[in-house]
Amino acid sequence: MARAVVLDPRSRHALFAGLPVRTLLSAAALDRLAGRADRLAGLDLLILDHGGVVRDPLGGVVDDPDPEICWLSLDVYEAGLLPVMLGVLMDGRSGRWAQSFSAGLDSPVFRRLMEKGYRLTRSDAQAPAIADYVMAQVMALLHPFSEQADARAEREWRRVPFREVGETRWLVVGLGAIGGALASRLRPFGAQVTAARRTPGPDPRVDAVTSPDRISAVLPETDVVVLACPLSDRTRGLADDAFFQAMRPGAILVNVARGGVVDEDALRRGLGRGQPAWAVLDVVSEEPLPADSWIWSHPRVRLTAHTSAAGGGVQRRGDALFLDNLARFLAGEPLRNEADPAEVGL
Amino acid sequence: MARAVVLDPRSRHALFAGLPVRTLLSAAALDRLAGRADRLAGLDLLILDHGGVVRDPLGGVVDDPDPEICWLSLDVYEAGLLPVMLGVLMDGRSGRWAQSFSAGLDSPVFRRLMEKGYRLTRSDAQAPAIADYVMAQVMALLHPFSEQADARAEREWRRVPFREVGETRWLVVGLGAIGGALASRLRPFGAQVTAARRTPGPDPRVDAVTSPDRISAVLPETDVVVLACPLSDRTRGLADDAFFQAMRPGAILVNVARGGVVDEDALRRGLGRGQPAWAVLDVVSEEPLPADSWIWSHPRVRLTAHTSAAGGGVQRRGDALFLDNLARFLAGEPLRNEADPAEVGL
Repeated sequence: MARAVVLDPRSRHALFAGLPVRTLLSAAALDRLAGRADRLAGLDLLILDHGGVVRDPLGGVVDDPDPEICWLSLDVYEAGLLPVMLGVLMDGRSGRWAQSFSAGLDSPVFRRLMEKGYRLTRSDAQAPAIADYVMAQVMALLHPFSEQADARAEREWRRVPFREVGETRWLVVGLGAIGGALASRLRPFGAQVTAARRTPGPDPRVDAVTSPDRISAVLPETDVVVLACPLSDRTRGLADDAFFQAMRPGAILVNVARGGVVDEDALRRGLGRGQPAWAVLDVVSEEPLPADSWIWSHPRVRLTAHTSAAGGGVQRRGDALFLDNLARFLAGEPLRNEADPAEVGL
Repeated sequence: MARAVVLDPRSRHALFAGLPVRTLLSAAALDRLAGRADRLAGLDLLILDHGGVVRDPLGGVVDDPDPEICWLSLDVYEAGLLPVMLGVLMDGRSGRWAQSFSAGLDSPVFRRLMEKGYRLTRSDAQAPAIADYVMAQVMALLHPFSEQADARAEREWRRVPFREVGETRWLVVGLGAIGGALASRLRPFGAQVTAARRTPGPDPRVDAVTSPDRISAVLPETDVVVLACPLSDRTRGLADDAFFQAMRPGAILVNVARGGVVDEDALRRGLGRGQPAWAVLDVVSEEPLPADSWIWSHPRVRLTAHTSAAGGGVQRRGDALFLDNLARFLAGEPLRNEADPAEVGL
């Protein structure tokens, strides 16, 4: 898109290659990046403040921000300002690239941004956090924490055995950044890991690779099933009655993908039979989960509020990814984690 | 020791290299090894039954077992038969080698066995289980499980952040089989790991190696301290008031070594100040822990009953170690994990 290379009157910063790029980011993100101001030099900064107002670096309100690039950072989502920031993007005319905090771009808003001309980049910053979450939740089910607490309360010196991770067989559905971070953690424990993914062929991170249509053949031999795939027409309702009927009795299901990957009625029936024995759900089909849902109180469900990415390192890694992609964007180089139109349903 | 190479009348098995070796093991161990009878061929088996009676393979009571080698397997300990088996060893005259289920040979009985002429081999079979235990217990403290349970009970969709393992700095005191298994698990999480051990110089399994007398300089920068060293005159009371005063406030202490490594009065004072904030104790100075101990009910102590080795893979790995060392012993080759007399206090 042709754009006149002129000094924009709103630009109060040094120029990068002669071209000030209008860059929308949150005040919180700017605070975090204060020590790396050199990386932001040459940008025309548009700062979404804590009240949802776009300001210039001197504090003046910007009436028509028209950003070209945007850092949709996690703090924006957490502060409830995501609709405001997305509104600014949708109101603009010059959008070129947006870095998302999210690994999955299934929300309709990403399709609208791409239709509007934005290039989109996913984030892999949450992958280590989500992999930690899966390890912590599954180990908490393999170890008899509640029996240990009971023994303490009874002041009884009682040995309670546990299952080692190395004795378990895992199926990781989706071998993207999250599945890969999980597989790397599982390796030194000695767990046997199979990944299901569309790309065929072996992968050094796992013991075996299977195709999505072969999952039901692997389930009977699997102790821990981790859903870590994008939500798409292919994966919606993947975990259905047939899926649960194929599961090994006593197995654990973990969903860190999207709620829509699981048929929740089928899951409820499966839990009643011990297929699976436990479900760790960080995502559900309707979020926030309605107060009358059975999922809140099922004794075999460990529900968390889409929180698996809430690790302490996510903001730092996200900022680093944004800065890296920013340098690439400004240099005209390929971006990391750039989304294909098919990922947003185009 | 000269021993006449004659067929012993109690031997009802094939001979190994012409020499039947009287081998004491439990009925439970023999059951587990049933599929590997070839490895036991040529041995004169002395079987400690579930009632503590030594029998030959046909069930006859053996009045004077006089074993030469012995597999002190975990099941013997768990069944409360360890005193009986050790009594059989101490009553004998021909002891040559005993494989212990234990990683630490600090109990006085091992000194007596070595004084009696036994070679002793430690076990590293529990190392993966203990490393799993440490990971599970520490991750359970880094993740807000109880807040998550509260949110479920209140049916409130609430994100609770957690700390990633990769954001933590660890000090592992002792880099034997247990410390090594733990370090290997921590690596893909991105944790920074320092090991304290007597052998100087770098080690590829950890980020840094320090000497035991430098521990207090490392403690202020350490989030998780794991005691995984042998109990000796050098390590007894290692974690004393000065140790806890040097700890980073909010840090976690894990003891999977021996209770005697920790001064429990000093620990109590430390917990009162948040140095450490949490103590995970799998061992205590007196086991079983007396019913009136403060340790049972301290809100910042996660006590378990010397159970960190109770992983499901320990028996299998222990049996494999015994069989490997058995073949080495019979072939006159060096044994794996053979104890130095200093380890038993000689």
